[in-house]
Amino acid sequence: MRAVDLIEKKRDGAALSADEIDFLVQGYVKGDIPDYQIAALLMAVVLRGMDARETSALTASMVASGQRLDLSRFGRVVDKHSTGGVGDKTTLVVAPLVAACGLPVAKMSGRGLGFSGGTLDKLESIAGYRVDLTTEEFLAQLERIGIVVTGQTKDLAPADGLLYALRDATGTVPSIPLIASSIMSKKIAAGAHAVVLDVKVGSGAFMKDRRMAAALARAMVSIGVAHGLAVTCELTDMEQPLGNAVGNALEVAEAIATLRGDGPADLTELALVAAAEMLVRGRKSRDHASARRRVQQALDDGAGLAKLRELAAAQGGDARMVDDPSRLPSAPRVETLRAPRTAYVAALGAEQVGVASVRLGAGREKKGDPIDLRTGVVLHAKVGDRVERGQPIADVHVAGRPADAGAIEQISGAFRWSARRVPRRRLILGRIASR
Amino acid sequence: MRAVDLIEKKRDGAALSADEIDFLVQGYVKGDIPDYQIAALLMAVVLRGMDARETSALTASMVASGQRLDLSRFGRVVDKHSTGGVGDKTTLVVAPLVAACGLPVAKMSGRGLGFSGGTLDKLESIAGYRVDLTTEEFLAQLERIGIVVTGQTKDLAPADGLLYALRDATGTVPSIPLIASSIMSKKIAAGAHAVVLDVKVGSGAFMKDRRMAAALARAMVSIGVAHGLAVTCELTDMEQPLGNAVGNALEVAEAIATLRGDGPADLTELALVAAAEMLVRGRKSRDHASARRRVQQALDDGAGLAKLRELAAAQGGDARMVDDPSRLPSAPRVETLRAPRTAYVAALGAEQVGVASVRLGAGREKKGDPIDLRTGVVLHAKVGDRVERGQPIADVHVAGRPADAGAIEQISGAFRWSARRVPRRRLILGRIASR
Repeated sequence: MRAVDLIEKKRDGAALSADEIDFLVQGYVKGDIPDYQIAALLMAVVLRGMDARETSALTASMVASGQRLDLSRFGRVVDKHSTGGVGDKTTLVVAPLVAACGLPVAKMSGRGLGFSGGTLDKLESIAGYRVDLTTEEFLAQLERIGIVVTGQTKDLAPADGLLYALRDATGTVPSIPLIASSIMSKKIAAGAHAVVLDVKVGSGAFMKDRRMAAALARAMVSIGVAHGLAVTCELTDMEQPLGNAVGNALEVAEAIATLRGDGPADLTELALVAAAEMLVRGRKSRDHASARRRVQQALDDGAGLAKLRELAAAQGGDARMVDDPSRLPSAPRVETLRAPRTAYVAALGAEQVGVASVRLGAGREKKGDPIDLRTGVVLHAKVGDRVERGQPIADVHVAGRPADAGAIEQISGAFRWSARRVPRRRLILGRIASR
Repeated sequence: MRAVDLIEKKRDGAALSADEIDFLVQGYVKGDIPDYQIAALLMAVVLRGMDARETSALTASMVASGQRLDLSRFGRVVDKHSTGGVGDKTTLVVAPLVAACGLPVAKMSGRGLGFSGGTLDKLESIAGYRVDLTTEEFLAQLERIGIVVTGQTKDLAPADGLLYALRDATGTVPSIPLIASSIMSKKIAAGAHAVVLDVKVGSGAFMKDRRMAAALARAMVSIGVAHGLAVTCELTDMEQPLGNAVGNALEVAEAIATLRGDGPADLTELALVAAAEMLVRGRKSRDHASARRRVQQALDDGAGLAKLRELAAAQGGDARMVDDPSRLPSAPRVETLRAPRTAYVAALGAEQVGVASVRLGAGREKKGDPIDLRTGVVLHAKVGDRVERGQPIADVHVAGRPADAGAIEQISGAFRWSARRVPRRRLILGRIASR
């Protein structure tokens, strides 16, 4: 087999066999196939596509490139993943709730990039929280307290890491088969028996429209089925930020408030839906209704919050910050934006808010850049809300960067106004799931 | 400017500006842009295309990557190029004829690859012939005898060499803008004021159909016009080999015979057409008819043959081989194929004959492989010829390789027979030219 022949095959629109895909993936990981050949192949995949069989084979090859965790001694393990958006701190609410209901949660998360935040960055707002557990620590903690949220270990699906870095440098990120196989390979390698996926749709997400999001969801369900995993994809709105807080420590504070029952309606609803779905997929509940009651109970009685405190402490974090969020890192100055007129919020551009938060220091332009955990925005009005002229619509938490003024203007510009009543946005747009 | 943004632009089907293309080409030559980014870009170009302005800008960047010869002190210099085929030894006939008519011919040629032969390999059949002249030697010889045929110097369009090697390894060869700019950048850098191009069409050529060949021709004419060059493209048939001989020394012998007036009809005709066109483009003749008479004269009076002898001697070759082709390297054994029935030749697959000649040792599978100058085929019947059962149809010159038997069978299989009369193939299929 020669790499160039397989590149030509894909270039000409034909499907590659599982053996051919594995030859390319393992050859690349071993260094036998140079990156320029894989780069050409990836561009051919972006422009020619891959069918469901190829996508599943690619996923299998990436899983086979490294270690695969066996978590079956913990019973049925359900993972959770979001394709990323602005203000998406759902994991910080869902993971403790689910673990509090007795279903083990073993989650490997990522860092933020561009306008999309990352759970690891957010958790690092809790002083001392470690995101680099070894596999042994990971397993021991899961055994002990039934919850772990850490970074991905290098031994899982190393091909995915290599391919992702190459895609990032070669304009070959936007491809449904490549995105789907990248996400699913990590979930499969991490030992999940089921996955609940949140596919974000809108300006603040990678998938800008519903059709693309549904295609990605179908691709991931199809990979899951081929690998014996139960998969649920919720398609959820990302035209406006999720919840009110955008920025790392601000989002942790909001997650804590939500676990106390004081969270924003959209975040609370999404967390309850996802947590209930995980209980169903983990076979801890017979159906969604009973799962929902159980999760609501864990929210109401503080079991979820207690689990977050336990998680923080177990991974070396300062648990007092969970009890008293005012101890979380905070920006030196808060600028309050006020409504320019009495009106309804017609739109609140998630991408603009996300980009502005990066400019405030809360996110990174490129991998490895440092971030400021303190900065960000707290919105006081969302789409459909009516505000009086001069009423506060957002608090911008700034650290005194030259870009602050521009970022504040951008947040202000993210609001669109209407004199007439505007309906609230529907949060959950659809659901695509395996049986 | 960032390479990844430009890759994405091309991936999404937009046109790159001249500055953007130059940034990529010079960045690649300088080593600032890694090969994996260029590989992804090239695949995007293959699948998304480039418009005429981009193709011309790419050509300009490749020219600008190295030295550009100024041959204006020699008057108007006309180059000649064939896109390559089986049995195409036209340059060996045309270049001496044109030079004998007083138009300087400064030709940089290439080596064969796959079923397509190369002029440099053929010329090396003449013992001692040097194809590695320095620029100084090149210019001095052009001054002295008005003809030079050598390999391309490394200083001309180095970007083209780098890009071609990358394309070869990444399945990104078949792209009209990339092929057209590669050919034209070398011609422009080599100082030509006009180019007469032979775009081969058919199974034994890179362009399998007329539509693609015409598109390539138009792309090259357009580049020429943008760079102030006059360009003529002849579209010529390559469904059967050109002339009768395929193989290096065998083709040199056929070229010599043609210059003596004893050549095959198709080769003689094509050489006269191309040579006359060069005289017109070089403004040595007022029109094609007078140019044709002048070239015919140089053929009839032996001036062309004398020029080939002079060329061979000037570049260190054994000129006695030109006077007496039996001195050329010859294979130890000749196998004669005979007609299996009395019939007309309906087809004579150029690709099959070309591939068979590679198996006989006359060509190379990949760059750098050695070749056997002695082996090849001499055909005794072409499409439209009627032969009696048992009449010789081809002499296969073999050196005793294990692959010989298979190659001979392949040559035999290249002949298709018909009981009914078959028309001869039309040689010149079309002409696309600048004014």
